[in-house]
Amino acid sequence: MFIEELKNIAAQIDTVIREDAFPATIEPAFLRDAVRDYPCRGGKRLRPAIVLWSCGLLGGKPESATHAAAAAEIFHNWTLVHDDIIDNDDFRRGQPTTHAALRQFSCDTYKLDGNAAAKFGADFAILTGDLQQAWANSMLLRSVEAGVSAELTLKLALRMQDFVNRELISGEALDVEFPLIGPEKLSTEQVNRMLYLKTGVLLQFCAETGAMIALGSADREQPAIKALGEYASDAGIAFQYRDDWLGLYGDQEKFGKPIGSDLAEAKPTLMLIKALEALSPQGKSELLSLLGRDSYSGQAIDRARFLIRDSGAEDFVLRESESRIRNAHAKLMTLPENPYRKLLEELLAYLIGRTV
Amino acid sequence: MFIEELKNIAAQIDTVIREDAFPATIEPAFLRDAVRDYPCRGGKRLRPAIVLWSCGLLGGKPESATHAAAAAEIFHNWTLVHDDIIDNDDFRRGQPTTHAALRQFSCDTYKLDGNAAAKFGADFAILTGDLQQAWANSMLLRSVEAGVSAELTLKLALRMQDFVNRELISGEALDVEFPLIGPEKLSTEQVNRMLYLKTGVLLQFCAETGAMIALGSADREQPAIKALGEYASDAGIAFQYRDDWLGLYGDQEKFGKPIGSDLAEAKPTLMLIKALEALSPQGKSELLSLLGRDSYSGQAIDRARFLIRDSGAEDFVLRESESRIRNAHAKLMTLPENPYRKLLEELLAYLIGRTV
Repeated sequence: MFIEELKNIAAQIDTVIREDAFPATIEPAFLRDAVRDYPCRGGKRLRPAIVLWSCGLLGGKPESATHAAAAAEIFHNWTLVHDDIIDNDDFRRGQPTTHAALRQFSCDTYKLDGNAAAKFGADFAILTGDLQQAWANSMLLRSVEAGVSAELTLKLALRMQDFVNRELISGEALDVEFPLIGPEKLSTEQVNRMLYLKTGVLLQFCAETGAMIALGSADREQPAIKALGEYASDAGIAFQYRDDWLGLYGDQEKFGKPIGSDLAEAKPTLMLIKALEALSPQGKSELLSLLGRDSYSGQAIDRARFLIRDSGAEDFVLRESESRIRNAHAKLMTLPENPYRKLLEELLAYLIGRTV
Repeated sequence: MFIEELKNIAAQIDTVIREDAFPATIEPAFLRDAVRDYPCRGGKRLRPAIVLWSCGLLGGKPESATHAAAAAEIFHNWTLVHDDIIDNDDFRRGQPTTHAALRQFSCDTYKLDGNAAAKFGADFAILTGDLQQAWANSMLLRSVEAGVSAELTLKLALRMQDFVNRELISGEALDVEFPLIGPEKLSTEQVNRMLYLKTGVLLQFCAETGAMIALGSADREQPAIKALGEYASDAGIAFQYRDDWLGLYGDQEKFGKPIGSDLAEAKPTLMLIKALEALSPQGKSELLSLLGRDSYSGQAIDRARFLIRDSGAEDFVLRESESRIRNAHAKLMTLPENPYRKLLEELLAYLIGRTV
């Protein structure tokens, strides 16, 4: 039931995005294709599901939130395009990233190579994300076509600038800055703040936007809107905690990335920062010495696992994750019981399910 | 009178932008400073002047268009931040560009150097422009606070996505692509299209937005709105033609850039493309051989000047510029005579005046 409903939403959002006229007049053609690329790649479309089900839960017609749902997805995608340039990632889920694909295009079409091709890829990927940001805004602004009032649409569009963009990009910036500060100088509060901005904010916006469209109000202090917002941001942060845990203690087969890649990147996860806070000076310097290596032996990974477990940080991050999930669930239970609430409840279980 | 009025507008827009709360909560602090940098650098604020005077000309209160005027200026600035990364420019009017300033910040604060510092500068300059795009949208959406109706504000915000962003970024992309195609394969139509997208569109939006706020209508087919839009885009393109002419035939003292730098970059100006179309095969290949050099003797510049003049392309581009100016003026004269029309008339003379 849940998986089927999620697939229905994915199919519906795929169609809305694929058929949307916004990119059609972009020049040159390869840039138009790049703008369409990530948003049309499909995927689970969890963000649109949260928008539509939150709207349904509070008695709204999910159809009236379709533009907002598609906008959230396009918004998410433009931030990925720029993130991928910044992170120097050439692959996203097995397919070339935008800048990598454009780099290859420049080799094939303009016979560029080396630095010139890399610069072509990055330059046009910057413009790709810029256009996708406008596409997301355009999609959201067209919510009036689905019956959302002009006043509410304006407020939603304003929140996409003042809340989502500003906070999410601040989170991305902190994420890029943290490795330069160094994990030993970061606090768990700083890491949690970054996680909320980078991951929680857009999910909160999705739930709140669905709720706002249902209630015809942009008042974030309304209990139902607030409860759904907390549900979504806590669910997202809990997922991130568990994903970070899986990155060290998980099963290589089930997990997407190599175990230990977070250690190699010295990724400032809550678990790592907590361990560095809790360990003895000797333990701390040993754990720091295990970060940022080019490759990892099984022994080195086992030693990092031991130190983090021994510090209590593994237990801490799993409890923090559980606490967020319980809070998200409790917020949901304050709202009317109906099939949409059930779907959002199953979404929570689905997110945790990845860790079983 | 005109210069005084322009200074008043610059002072007013400076204040609106400097005091705006949007950037205040951006993290980290150096990113917040970068977001404020270009928009707060001042300058002539010609785009806001066009918005406010177009509004006044058609009987609107210029104050009601203040948000739109500031939004156009911030929008212009974010595109410059991303352009400067793409063009590898380290200076903008004698001051460091955003990515150059951030690169230096990373040297001073995080002791980065070489490629790492350059990457830091470019990465955070990408995020700076991303945030400024949201800031421009936020500013425009807050036009409702100045009495613009929610419906009209929505339509203006939608035009900023579907018209300005999409067309302007397409123009920027064509401008980056053209050197790869090569000037001998470009047509004057392609160059004019790129110029309209990159330069004309935002100016047209400024004039039309002021007019739309005055008339409370977003109908671009209304004669007064259309006339002001053509006035502004023709004025901008005429300016660009003459600026390109000055880049080869102008006085080094009065002109900002070194004479011949357009030849060095093989910049596909209308004048160059027209010359390549009109010259004999021998003349064409000689002119092509004068492009893309590392340095230029006075003799080489004189030879390029001769070939372009001899082809009729110099005369052509000056006539095209005059024709645009005449058209812009004629459009303005179809509108009511009042002090705002006079200011827009003087703005046209002012733009040409730079070329005397």
